[in-house]
Amino acid sequence: MNKHILGVDWGTSNRRAYLVDQHGACLAEHDDDQGMLAVGGRDRFGASLAGVLDAMQLGAGVPVILSGMVGSASGWQEVPYLDAAVPLEQLPRHLASVADPAWAGRARIVPGYCYRGEAGADVMRGEETQLLGAVALGHRDGWLVLPGTHSKWVLLRDGVIQSFATFMTGELFAMLSAGGTLSAMMSGDSKQAEGFAAGLKQAARHEPLSNTLFRVRAGVVSKSAPAEQAAATVSGLLIGAEFAAAARAAEGQGIAVIGSPALAARYAVAAGYFGLKCEVLDPHRVYCTAISQFIQQA
Amino acid sequence: MNKHILGVDWGTSNRRAYLVDQHGACLAEHDDDQGMLAVGGRDRFGASLAGVLDAMQLGAGVPVILSGMVGSASGWQEVPYLDAAVPLEQLPRHLASVADPAWAGRARIVPGYCYRGEAGADVMRGEETQLLGAVALGHRDGWLVLPGTHSKWVLLRDGVIQSFATFMTGELFAMLSAGGTLSAMMSGDSKQAEGFAAGLKQAARHEPLSNTLFRVRAGVVSKSAPAEQAAATVSGLLIGAEFAAAARAAEGQGIAVIGSPALAARYAVAAGYFGLKCEVLDPHRVYCTAISQFIQQA
Repeated sequence: MNKHILGVDWGTSNRRAYLVDQHGACLAEHDDDQGMLAVGGRDRFGASLAGVLDAMQLGAGVPVILSGMVGSASGWQEVPYLDAAVPLEQLPRHLASVADPAWAGRARIVPGYCYRGEAGADVMRGEETQLLGAVALGHRDGWLVLPGTHSKWVLLRDGVIQSFATFMTGELFAMLSAGGTLSAMMSGDSKQAEGFAAGLKQAARHEPLSNTLFRVRAGVVSKSAPAEQAAATVSGLLIGAEFAAAARAAEGQGIAVIGSPALAARYAVAAGYFGLKCEVLDPHRVYCTAISQFIQQA
Repeated sequence: MNKHILGVDWGTSNRRAYLVDQHGACLAEHDDDQGMLAVGGRDRFGASLAGVLDAMQLGAGVPVILSGMVGSASGWQEVPYLDAAVPLEQLPRHLASVADPAWAGRARIVPGYCYRGEAGADVMRGEETQLLGAVALGHRDGWLVLPGTHSKWVLLRDGVIQSFATFMTGELFAMLSAGGTLSAMMSGDSKQAEGFAAGLKQAARHEPLSNTLFRVRAGVVSKSAPAEQAAATVSGLLIGAEFAAAARAAEGQGIAVIGSPALAARYAVAAGYFGLKCEVLDPHRVYCTAISQFIQQA
């Protein structure tokens, strides 16, 4: 049995690596901007991964678990999605061995999940590993929220995904900040409390974002709302839309947010507004716990 | 009384000029890309307008009516919004004379409207001129829809605005096409019928756009939906969100769409899906009719 294992959360723009022991303790970590898009082609992932081990001064014997977009069609190799009915604790049985001969038998990729609900399909890659960590930490039931570029709301029952939904919260915020009608007024603090609360209040009305986002501009140009609150209002509208969509289903249950302190704090405020209890889980601890679950298989 | 008048619809990115007689007939027209942003500063609007008259070979005696973003804080001069309670037919009494001495007494700017509803403020600049034209053509009551970058849904009663709402439909479509998660799959025909219908169907579920837009991607990567329909599905989601928000209010009344044939055709399809009757008004005819209403005042 291996005592140590390297987990690499390899996303679109960044990657983070953690050396983990069998108890889920983090012994070393590394992060850089060599996300999937920066690697520059399928045949370069192997060398790119070798760079992580070099940077961390790890020998060739450490098994590696990869999760995230590295397993997508644009990544190292495409790993088919698991059906949502597969229990999270069975993830270690479904790892895909990397075909690249330099890494075969040593590096494995965690598959993502696909959920097919009545509204259509939804997918995740990377979040399943966080979910496994949460389950291992005892969060086997209820709502888990993973905020970010693509926020995920996942309903678990006894460690099995019942349903999940993705919201392009972070991506839309970045797009609206970068250009277009709202960008000029979005230079203020996106955490500003009154602006954020105004966005949550609007979001609770269930009107389309295409309408409520424009009203941020209308509020400023009609001098009904201060421009310095606009960024926070947009943040409140986008995060509030997640809660407005899920709050009825989550009523009486509360949510557990796996996110950085800054982001989790915003979700805690939103949860309070929508009347939900909110527990915050540290994403590093959750991830390292998940990686430790793979030691038997690696 | 002037027999002819020049109307200039001067927007953010483009402008269109129409020489109109007292019956609303268009005698000549001109369009170019010298929108507000291209003019390059407040003190250059006068010379820029002179360029339009030169291009149309018009003499110095023609009065000019300007509408659109030219009257915004970033335009030639800021013209305060009118309250929505001011009847559209009173717009000719509320024109703002251009202060620039080279144009004073000759060029006038149509004010936009501000509506303060329980959900907050909304604003328009430019659409009020179209609405005046529609009223002059007999559309004094019911829903008028002006699709585009910022689609407007306006409820009229006896020529007075009861309420209106703006949707960033065209702007969001352009943003999502230009970059980010969806852009790579949005090269298909945005009018493709099955894809558009799929978007309308999703929109009718009243889920947040941040969620339904991601599901377009999820559908493609999970092989549930063809990538070549993705652009049309995004279009259906965004246009459908307008209908989903307004359809209940518009029930039994139908809508009149003031839009180009291509855009109006999509709205007509969406109206059919949401069970609304839909009449299409030609935007050029509506605009020229509006401009003719200003001849007495010019």
